Amino acid sequence: MENPILVEALRGPTVESFHRGAVAVVDDRGRVVWSCGDIERPIFPRSAVKLLQALPLVTSGAADRLGLTSAELALACASHGGEPAHVEAAASMLAKTGVDASVLECGAHWPSHEASERDLARRGAEPTALNNNCSGKHSGFVCVGCATSGLSGAALFDFMRGYVEPEHPVMRQVTQALSQATDHPLAHAPAGVDGCSIPTYAIPLFNLALGFARAGTGIGLPADMAQAAARLRLAIAEAPFMVAGSGRFDTRVMQRLGARVCCKIGAEGVYCASLPEKGWGVALKMDDGNTSRAAEVVMAALIEALIPLGSEDAMALRTLSETVMHNWRGRRVGSLRATTDFRAALAGLQ
Amino acid sequence: MENPILVEALRGPTVESFHRGAVAVVDDRGRVVWSCGDIERPIFPRSAVKLLQALPLVTSGAADRLGLTSAELALACASHGGEPAHVEAAASMLAKTGVDASVLECGAHWPSHEASERDLARRGAEPTALNNNCSGKHSGFVCVGCATSGLSGAALFDFMRGYVEPEHPVMRQVTQALSQATDHPLAHAPAGVDGCSIPTYAIPLFNLALGFARAGTGIGLPADMAQAAARLRLAIAEAPFMVAGSGRFDTRVMQRLGARVCCKIGAEGVYCASLPEKGWGVALKMDDGNTSRAAEVVMAALIEALIPLGSEDAMALRTLSETVMHNWRGRRVGSLRATTDFRAALAGLQ
Repeated sequence: MENPILVEALRGPTVESFHRGAVAVVDDRGRVVWSCGDIERPIFPRSAVKLLQALPLVTSGAADRLGLTSAELALACASHGGEPAHVEAAASMLAKTGVDASVLECGAHWPSHEASERDLARRGAEPTALNNNCSGKHSGFVCVGCATSGLSGAALFDFMRGYVEPEHPVMRQVTQALSQATDHPLAHAPAGVDGCSIPTYAIPLFNLALGFARAGTGIGLPADMAQAAARLRLAIAEAPFMVAGSGRFDTRVMQRLGARVCCKIGAEGVYCASLPEKGWGVALKMDDGNTSRAAEVVMAALIEALIPLGSEDAMALRTLSETVMHNWRGRRVGSLRATTDFRAALAGLQ
Repeated sequence: MENPILVEALRGPTVESFHRGAVAVVDDRGRVVWSCGDIERPIFPRSAVKLLQALPLVTSGAADRLGLTSAELALACASHGGEPAHVEAAASMLAKTGVDASVLECGAHWPSHEASERDLARRGAEPTALNNNCSGKHSGFVCVGCATSGLSGAALFDFMRGYVEPEHPVMRQVTQALSQATDHPLAHAPAGVDGCSIPTYAIPLFNLALGFARAGTGIGLPADMAQAAARLRLAIAEAPFMVAGSGRFDTRVMQRLGARVCCKIGAEGVYCASLPEKGWGVALKMDDGNTSRAAEVVMAALIEALIPLGSEDAMALRTLSETVMHNWRGRRVGSLRATTDFRAALAGLQ
């Protein structure tokens, strides 16, 4: 089965490139509300499931014991741009556990936020693991280790060594939460190593959407997981800058819509979202792995179609589902947009 | 018609994403040697046709009159990384015309070569038009203006104003050369504005491949264009660093294979190449517009299949058509590769 074309890139009035993908919209009881393409093929959700991977941070008691702020909880669910505020929040999380950034096993990379990258270079500095877009998630894992091992300082450091491996006690909790939320066993799921070295397990879009529907309403989850999901969603709604950063899609959407939408981008063209007021979860994957221009456009069109929006919000979302492309001189050269067929198929879903 | 899957990205042993595209291999008489997918749909060739767009630089007499070096001619065909040597060569071309970089209408952007970007930032500098990946091509246009208008200095500056517009005398020559080489009329072709503000015209892959076959042997071209194409190809073979830059595909391939291959990447997943010893031209376009990982892998697999290679060259090409992906900690997480079906379909073509 070919997945349908969901996004097209135009140069002038001519379609230059296009993107295929699959989408699942599922309610918290497991009913498919809407879908297109193959939603049964297991796909690697990558960073789109950080919310579910952060559930043990709350259920373990770590968030309470360490007094994590909303900004820090949001950062634990983030793929951030490595901007100064992100780096500071990750360092603050670690400071509460008594260890430092040398415990992190995510690897270092230059901030994806370009101005922050160049600021770092101008200061003659080099990036650290704190600049890694996953440093908040990894700091959250250290917090879980702190809460569940009862250790601190050097002993916590020893305990955490190898925490990115599937069999480490912390990673077992993370995987267990992901499996339970998505109602999908992961023991025999196709496995890979993510960009930040933790395992990623292939899960069908149906189950990912189910997991995000449940995370939105709590239905289908044990009470502690339901409460944890609500707390994380509200933390993100309070501190949407922390989950992505300046100019980024997730930050822009949640700065505008608050807790009505909890969406999260993942590498290789994946997106997941909770729409709590509908009791629906959304999961999508672009065939070609294009995240920044394809998956984002699809998610914007889905939000437009799935929840009622006031005119200002609708206009703001439309600038994300139908974006103008400029060249280096600022001249308008084309656009990216959800296809007419895709929009038509979504009509009437609210 | 669906274009076939040509490249797949694996995470661990599992296919995570994949890329569809179309390929035309055409000889200098216009016979299709091999193809897959839709090679009749007009596509924007973007920067993949810079060699053809640079023909007037030689046929106008500008290259001789201004004493352009091989490095400068190669830069006129380049999408370079904005490294210091590229910037210096573009400035040198302009110096020979007597105008400076303020004449350029390509726009400024930070060097795409990341280390050069950060070096610029460390020095507290900002990028100029010379850092634009198209600055060599644009400097070549100024050289054409210098040769064809007979002007220099301020008068040349005035003449060049608006040279990126389709109706400017210089751009008319560029478009005419492109049309003639590809045997495709462009007056009514779908048109768009390229990233560097010059027009881009949609041309079928068949015609693009034909143009590159002709540029490889000269057959089917007027004598002056045939000689110009040979001179540009040899200039690139002498100075392959200039056409792309450190670590870049085109530079790596031509540093190894010299004048046996003249290949050029374009934005939005386009590639063109001449294979002079076969009398063949190659043109390809990925549906999703993915250049750096999809179009490059396809071009590498095509070179492997289309010309006989010694074992070291074959191994080097294989590292480009089957690349290992590492994460931020340097851990092997997956691979990119030409699909088995694509390789099988290419078998026996040498």
